[in-house]
Amino acid sequence: MTPRKGIGRTPPTSAPLAADLANMQHAIESAAAGLAEGGVPIGACLVNNRTGEVLGVGRNRRVQMGSAIRHGETDCLENVGRLPASVYRECTIYTTLSPCAMCTGACILYEIPRVVIGENESFLGAEQTLKAHRIKVHLQECKVMMKEFIDMKPEVWWEDIGEEKRANEA
Amino acid sequence: MTPRKGIGRTPPTSAPLAADLANMQHAIESAAAGLAEGGVPIGACLVNNRTGEVLGVGRNRRVQMGSAIRHGETDCLENVGRLPASVYRECTIYTTLSPCAMCTGACILYEIPRVVIGENESFLGAEQTLKAHRIKVHLQECKVMMKEFIDMKPEVWWEDIGEEKRANEA
Ligand SMILES: [Ca+2]
Ligand SMILES: [Ca+2]
Ligand SMILES: [Zn+2]
Ligand SMILES: [Zn+2]
Repeated sequence: MTPRKGIGRTPPTSAPLAADLANMQHAIESAAAGLAEGGVPIGACLVNNRTGEVLGVGRNRRVQMGSAIRHGETDCLENVGRLPASVYRECTIYTTLSPCAMCTGACILYEIPRVVIGENESFLGAEQTLKAHRIKVHLQECKVMMKEFIDMKPEVWWEDIGEEKRANEA
Repeated sequence: MTPRKGIGRTPPTSAPLAADLANMQHAIESAAAGLAEGGVPIGACLVNNRTGEVLGVGRNRRVQMGSAIRHGETDCLENVGRLPASVYRECTIYTTLSPCAMCTGACILYEIPRVVIGENESFLGAEQTLKAHRIKVHLQECKVMMKEFIDMKPEVWWEDIGEEKRANEA
């Protein structure tokens, strides 16, 4: 494959653009919709950087769909549907929570060049291995949403990250 | 989390068990079913190592479902449905083709301890990063199935791995 500029070659930055905060709101709204359905409140949004178009949103639907693979990011990619490789490569994906190994892998598969992460304190995924600009916005509302959910339904949360309980809860 | 034995601590082996070849047949049959539907012929199968039970199978359904995330392995995990973390940790996943970054990430997320790979010549995924025993069986029928498909529908294949075409086809 021909090397392309800007992917996996520049260090992560922590500076969001103004538009990133607006786009992240779509992810947050999806997370909130998931919570209202009884699900895990994690949301995502895929935006075309060139056109500014919001291509779609998604939310964790493990509970709602009995799903093992519908995380915020993967549900978003699935809702958007099949895209040419060149389109993914001009997108930003917004996610309210640090992406797990599977969702990180999905971003790597499609070479999504920018990933904006709402928070990574409730959970630190495999984001270090992303071959993309990682932008962390440390949004208080993302943290509060996760903290309240984890306190309320810890067993659903642990299942979501492939665990049964924390060692310190044993 | 408490360290657990046997995951990510032993080097890959290339020696399949006798049962692995039988279990791989379920993955191959799923791949063949996908091909008959007009899809990409990649199949997977999840088996409980302790009980020997086949928990489910899956096949790449990008074409059939217009899906961006239904690869063989993820479709298999989705068909099986939500499982406790402890069950994934006693499973083997069989896949007819080397797992991509997303499917590798799914195996890492769920800490699936064994991954049996039918072939990795048509495509070498992110399998090197698997924290699991990797067992390669180099099955001729898996290779032939992929080669015939890639020759027949190259554009569907490239889309599947997040590409549009090979540099050497440009
Ligand atoms: Ca884990
Ligand atoms: Ca690629
Ligand atoms: Zn995830
Ligand atoms: Zn895959």
